[in-house]
Amino acid sequence: MQFRYEELAAFIAALVEGGTLLPGTRVPSLREISDQRKVSVTTALQAYRLLEDRGVIESRPQSGFYVARSGPISLGVPSVTNPPAKATGVAVSDLVEKLLEHASNPRLIPLGCAVPDPKLLAAVRLDKILARIARQKGSEYNVYTFPKGDARLRREIAKRSSRWGQVLSPDDLVITVGCTEALMLALKSVARAGDTIAVESPTYFGLLQAIEALDLKALELPTDPATGIDLNVLAKTLKTTNVKACLLSSSFNNPLGCTVPEEKKRAILDLLARHDVPLIEDDIYGDIYFGDRRPKPYIALDRRGNTIYCSSFSKTIAPGYRVGWIVPSRYREKILAAKFAHTLCGAALPQAALAEFLATSGYENHLRRIRRMFKDNVEWMTRAIDRSFPVGTKVSRPAGGFVLWVELPKPLRSRDLFDRALKKGICFAPGDVFSASARYANCLRLSCGYGWSDSIEKGIETLGALARAALAR
Amino acid sequence: MQFRYEELAAFIAALVEGGTLLPGTRVPSLREISDQRKVSVTTALQAYRLLEDRGVIESRPQSGFYVARSGPISLGVPSVTNPPAKATGVAVSDLVEKLLEHASNPRLIPLGCAVPDPKLLAAVRLDKILARIARQKGSEYNVYTFPKGDARLRREIAKRSSRWGQVLSPDDLVITVGCTEALMLALKSVARAGDTIAVESPTYFGLLQAIEALDLKALELPTDPATGIDLNVLAKTLKTTNVKACLLSSSFNNPLGCTVPEEKKRAILDLLARHDVPLIEDDIYGDIYFGDRRPKPYIALDRRGNTIYCSSFSKTIAPGYRVGWIVPSRYREKILAAKFAHTLCGAALPQAALAEFLATSGYENHLRRIRRMFKDNVEWMTRAIDRSFPVGTKVSRPAGGFVLWVELPKPLRSRDLFDRALKKGICFAPGDVFSASARYANCLRLSCGYGWSDSIEKGIETLGALARAALAR
Repeated sequence: MQFRYEELAAFIAALVEGGTLLPGTRVPSLREISDQRKVSVTTALQAYRLLEDRGVIESRPQSGFYVARSGPISLGVPSVTNPPAKATGVAVSDLVEKLLEHASNPRLIPLGCAVPDPKLLAAVRLDKILARIARQKGSEYNVYTFPKGDARLRREIAKRSSRWGQVLSPDDLVITVGCTEALMLALKSVARAGDTIAVESPTYFGLLQAIEALDLKALELPTDPATGIDLNVLAKTLKTTNVKACLLSSSFNNPLGCTVPEEKKRAILDLLARHDVPLIEDDIYGDIYFGDRRPKPYIALDRRGNTIYCSSFSKTIAPGYRVGWIVPSRYREKILAAKFAHTLCGAALPQAALAEFLATSGYENHLRRIRRMFKDNVEWMTRAIDRSFPVGTKVSRPAGGFVLWVELPKPLRSRDLFDRALKKGICFAPGDVFSASARYANCLRLSCGYGWSDSIEKGIETLGALARAALAR
Repeated sequence: MQFRYEELAAFIAALVEGGTLLPGTRVPSLREISDQRKVSVTTALQAYRLLEDRGVIESRPQSGFYVARSGPISLGVPSVTNPPAKATGVAVSDLVEKLLEHASNPRLIPLGCAVPDPKLLAAVRLDKILARIARQKGSEYNVYTFPKGDARLRREIAKRSSRWGQVLSPDDLVITVGCTEALMLALKSVARAGDTIAVESPTYFGLLQAIEALDLKALELPTDPATGIDLNVLAKTLKTTNVKACLLSSSFNNPLGCTVPEEKKRAILDLLARHDVPLIEDDIYGDIYFGDRRPKPYIALDRRGNTIYCSSFSKTIAPGYRVGWIVPSRYREKILAAKFAHTLCGAALPQAALAEFLATSGYENHLRRIRRMFKDNVEWMTRAIDRSFPVGTKVSRPAGGFVLWVELPKPLRSRDLFDRALKKGICFAPGDVFSASARYANCLRLSCGYGWSDSIEKGIETLGALARAALAR
């Protein structure tokens, strides 16, 4: 026997299969279909959810249900990168400053900055908690939280660590001003001016800026958009070059979005341990996985204590709170001293509010919600690129996070496109800021952090048109 | 003709002069005196305020009015310091960590940490503003505030700058994570590993930790507890040593409390400019002056743009908010890039709340109130030391701020006293953390940041007794 909603689902599915409803077109609204088929709106919703789970239709916020564009995506995938095999000084600050100036402009279509839309976050609940603590216990928190940061927040993070395969105690953690400070402290504790740090290529420009600020050199490793750095090249590099540390993303790196298989992670750890090179890992996107399981970070696979772990809440709930953390492992003394020297400690009330939120307010449910949302955004943006960009464009296929790496057909230069796009009110991140060696001039990064909307869809179409026009010239 | 309150004041003053009421004893309460002399409580209060203004009596919070101990203080003043005339590597982190571990323990009598008592601050109003903004506009502030920090806060700080003799525009400022980050960014932008920085001696241990964290060397300058560094020695030093920057407190330095006369500030600026050595100034105590006028910071006297200015709200209203600022002057590019690499930006809501507080909530009145309070605390603590500590003890006479520098008769060592004091539930800062060359073993710093109370008075008496006992051995 079939339930009413299953009957309705089968009816719609048949219309799609038979070509009556075409991919990308709107499905009748819940009210329309419930009128037409004499079922309750609840039953109609159940049917649509079932179809959605089966990938037959998809919902778009504020817009209704659409037949899934289930056709194969014709875009190619970027090839493994091939940066120069030598350490180089870094000078990306000027380029980055120019990007950030625009990326924080709220009047532009926000494809430039890898931040989540504040409206998508659970921040209303979090802000209410902050408000309550500020009113009721403000003076209790008008103090310095040194040396390691709010004790309750460290307890809550330690509790969560079992979810990513670690068993941490609150004392293993130091709260930082976002992941940025965590990475800076980690780099400072393992390297001195002139030393070489091995990184993915392309890599997050903030890492390059940290390397630049510390007068270090970056050695960019060839990186597969699917599976991360090239193990053989790393092995060769460690034999020939004095690498002070390896700085890698744990999962869904920014901008490529790669997922390093667990076995490969173990092999990288073995290799680094053999050469006594510490690993600094950036797990800021780890909680935003699209698959069934959270990928384990390196530190959970490292039995030698050779990994410094960095993360934050900036991508999942509160970029404005600036709360991150570091697991300093065997660099505890150095990192604590550097933390004190750099910022003493972070703001107390935001830490207290996050602790309360983690303890009471359904962070897991929130994560489930935004994972689904970012996954949909990534899918829709990929399809929009597929429809709009020049033939030959390649796009990454991240299994988590919310950025896409786009490789334009040469000789297109994303820096030229950047200036033209700004004039049309669109911001994105040109590829050159992700390299220490001025590579990726024909690439760009698009953020899918904002809820899918007509304006974003049109933004992508405009970008595609600009690229096609430039190519035709 | 005399008003009733003037008559009453004259009556009490006569009792004091005649020796009926002895220094340090309690004056009749307002209720008692209004009953006895048949005046209203308001009139009695007017009379007591008049006597207080004339220095005849003094009020103690929660305790009533006392005859002022108007006798001269017998304590000597610490002599000009005499550190070694050479640059030295810095390694104070371990000592400082041990201090901070105890200094943040709320069960100890809080003489260790130079923070104001949260209860003395206007933080209730500030916290209410934070709560309101979080509830009403939380998502608006759940963003990064790069590159320079909250625009309205920068406007409000720029407005205030005229009070210290500057005319700044909001664009001249960068918001930092407390003064700590400001000083770190300043040091980073002028010096590289191995370079030498000239500092006061003794100086704030946080500066020494920053110097240590950056692998710089400290050159400690002889410093007069009244008027600051020795100009002649600075002149000689600049001729013989490659000093990359001079890092000085603008006013009431921590721990000595010196006040550098304006003419001397100009002379220091001239000298540094002649040698092309930038000045980094730390003006964190500038608003807490006991005299009639706020001392001008160096930057207000510097017509050459050779000064980097650092300050914060941590000593005046909100240590827990971690909001400071820097005026990078001609190091703008470097400091902005370093800020981005270090922490990206600070928490948004605390910045927004401070901006609103500065614009609307009587910060000037608040400052007037805490200036008076800290001045009283410093006076009472000085007198308590005078009563309790061994003969030969010397104490600084700061004209602002809220710390006292105590020089014990040799061979007393404050580190031994520290351990014994902890056992009695008292924390202070031993002298050795204020020097790069292990000096000041017989000195200590006492914080007067907490409201005067019996427990603090007894804490000082216990410290004095411990010191006397150690000396007798």
